[in-house]
Amino acid sequence: MSEYTGYGGNSLEFLKANQVSVGDSVRILTDIAYHGIVMPRYEHGDDRHIVLKLKSGYNVGLEIKEIKEIKKNPQAKTTTEKNADIKRDATLPKILLLSTGGTIASKVDYRTGAVTPVLTAEELNSSVPELAGIANIDTRVLFSEYSENIMPRHWLEIAKAVSEYHKSDYAGIIIAHGTDTMHYTSSYLSFALAGFPIPIALAGSQRSSDRASSDAALNLIGAARFLTECKTNGIYVVMHQDENDKTVACHIGTRVRKNHTSKRGAFQTVGGSPAFLVVNDTVHNNMKGNFFADDKFDPKIMINDKVALIKYHPGYDSDILKNIIDSGYKAIIFEGTGLGHVGRDMYDTVKMAQERGIFMGMTSQCIDGRVRMTVYESGRDLLDLGIVPLEDMVPETALVKAMWATAYAKNSDETRKIMLNSIASELS
Amino acid sequence: MSEYTGYGGNSLEFLKANQVSVGDSVRILTDIAYHGIVMPRYEHGDDRHIVLKLKSGYNVGLEIKEIKEIKKNPQAKTTTEKNADIKRDATLPKILLLSTGGTIASKVDYRTGAVTPVLTAEELNSSVPELAGIANIDTRVLFSEYSENIMPRHWLEIAKAVSEYHKSDYAGIIIAHGTDTMHYTSSYLSFALAGFPIPIALAGSQRSSDRASSDAALNLIGAARFLTECKTNGIYVVMHQDENDKTVACHIGTRVRKNHTSKRGAFQTVGGSPAFLVVNDTVHNNMKGNFFADDKFDPKIMINDKVALIKYHPGYDSDILKNIIDSGYKAIIFEGTGLGHVGRDMYDTVKMAQERGIFMGMTSQCIDGRVRMTVYESGRDLLDLGIVPLEDMVPETALVKAMWATAYAKNSDETRKIMLNSIASELS
Repeated sequence: MSEYTGYGGNSLEFLKANQVSVGDSVRILTDIAYHGIVMPRYEHGDDRHIVLKLKSGYNVGLEIKEIKEIKKNPQAKTTTEKNADIKRDATLPKILLLSTGGTIASKVDYRTGAVTPVLTAEELNSSVPELAGIANIDTRVLFSEYSENIMPRHWLEIAKAVSEYHKSDYAGIIIAHGTDTMHYTSSYLSFALAGFPIPIALAGSQRSSDRASSDAALNLIGAARFLTECKTNGIYVVMHQDENDKTVACHIGTRVRKNHTSKRGAFQTVGGSPAFLVVNDTVHNNMKGNFFADDKFDPKIMINDKVALIKYHPGYDSDILKNIIDSGYKAIIFEGTGLGHVGRDMYDTVKMAQERGIFMGMTSQCIDGRVRMTVYESGRDLLDLGIVPLEDMVPETALVKAMWATAYAKNSDETRKIMLNSIASELS
Repeated sequence: MSEYTGYGGNSLEFLKANQVSVGDSVRILTDIAYHGIVMPRYEHGDDRHIVLKLKSGYNVGLEIKEIKEIKKNPQAKTTTEKNADIKRDATLPKILLLSTGGTIASKVDYRTGAVTPVLTAEELNSSVPELAGIANIDTRVLFSEYSENIMPRHWLEIAKAVSEYHKSDYAGIIIAHGTDTMHYTSSYLSFALAGFPIPIALAGSQRSSDRASSDAALNLIGAARFLTECKTNGIYVVMHQDENDKTVACHIGTRVRKNHTSKRGAFQTVGGSPAFLVVNDTVHNNMKGNFFADDKFDPKIMINDKVALIKYHPGYDSDILKNIIDSGYKAIIFEGTGLGHVGRDMYDTVKMAQERGIFMGMTSQCIDGRVRMTVYESGRDLLDLGIVPLEDMVPETALVKAMWATAYAKNSDETRKIMLNSIASELS
């Protein structure tokens, strides 16, 4: 990253003229005074603003023509201090921390102004000293992406990295991940790495580490505690339970959703309680049965992204579906209404998909509850048209599972069998 | 409806051979014995099954070749009895009940085997005798559709019918409606009939009236009580609050969602409490402020259904969006991740939509919480690309509002203004 990343035109000239670059701590005077760090910008940014990260953790865009003065803060250092070496305790278990980016790994960014997240073992242990009392933690940076930019190709990369450790001496693996799409990634790993012998905890944070209200440390400590004490395997999303600082919830990776845009307790297990709770450093087990239907580890790390998720609504244009059918899609997951319905205006197009051998699965946009397509005529009509009711599978999980299943299933019938067979607690 | 509606081929022959027709009460012997009503079938039904509605309220499909015996029940009557005339009490307020179909209006269906719902004042008052003690109820059947088949054209029909009563002496209007898409309809009426002087309650039922657990009566009584006592206006979804029989919740029509496929308390106000609660026949007011920003009634009963709702997910194929752009759409509502993001793989296509002057609004698939696109670079990039953050508007409401706004806005800028201006409590 250059010292002017993302700035061009007027805003670049402005920064250069004032001898200020990305990562500098500055005081800016407009109608009011701002103190903060100059942030890098990305492509598509206009050239009329500079972006400042305030101490509160939030960013503001300031219009250059409104800026009366910009001054570097002489006391501030833009580089992080080198921390003391970590002490390792040979009597403690080992945990591997894989970083993929996201807010949780952005402490350093917010101090230096850099957005590409970097996390080293030293920085981690110094910011969360409690971790060293739980486990010896090795870290590995896989890539640095906020999770809205995590794509199926990244799922493959994570799964391949994790699978290398299936015969390691780690008690478990923490995957630091942005929260936006964490539940999609946890679903993918649950299927691709079915039977993986040690537990995996995806941990993120809703507030960056430089904010007083950050949940980064709590979630990492909770994840480490969970992995070393849970005595089971599976893929879990490990996040703050609610606004208090006492409870971290460990959600089954195929049954979890981000249900609030910003609050710390945003993740919830759909239709049930979290599998484990870490309360004041004690791990409580609410898990019913095993995470995996089969504990034999036989990874299938593959993906077919020609799968569509269609949220039906009044006025849904079946031409959109027609276009999907004509584009070589192998599967369609519907988010139907209620018990699993779409309007009869869709029937002809659904029939077309059936004739092309495209797998069609039904979930509900209600999210909670079970689809049941035998109660009303509409449901039975759709059953006759070959749509497969996916029980209480979460729509996002159904999408990811279909992307995985169609990558190796020979035909729609085999996809159907895989979809209806609970592999990683996705059906309850 | 004929006496063999929907049956053809083998199944039609089977019914005729056994002198059984739709609506008959029968005993069927397979490996076990079933008692129930023969139901009509719809197009797309195969000819190997007949459908029986059991006393439990559920339907089963029975394969003809497994049927050992089918016998009509000689005691059963297939027609409903004519009920006594309703007594009207001139001291009570008047309520209008408009029926659009759905489970709530399907009591007669389930007794006779007919699926097209019919509701008359007599039947209503005889099945819910408490209503006559609250108000004098006039009824009018608009059409009979389960709500998965309610389309924008039906919204127009309902709105036109309702608007005829804006100077009536009714205390309020109940709209009996299927639950699947009730919240889409309530949103539409909230915008199209902004300022409507008397309160409107959409009421449905999660369980049909012939089941012991039906909530039809409770919801109708709650709606009537609410309309006669609330002393305000607005469009509300009035449904059972939870599994007990005490509380009916009145949700703001633009802030409500069906969040469970089957349980009675399926409807919830997003990010808040219901505006009113009817508890043991007493109406409690939790409403903050007025429902409508402006109480001047100036109906705009129009719709443009060229609006797409796009639920972004990892691997979302931007070619689907490209096709939508090329198909003359006027608006796109995104259900982004987290605070309102889509992956950067989408940026080029989003830019294309911007250049075509298509309105783009951002909501969140988290459903609860507020989008905030200034916190992360991704959000700011999308702001630069012209995507408008729609605050805490529920995605389904945003879709309906955009369908309504683009029907009369002259351009994307005017659409933007309408979308950001709270008209019917859709922004909080």
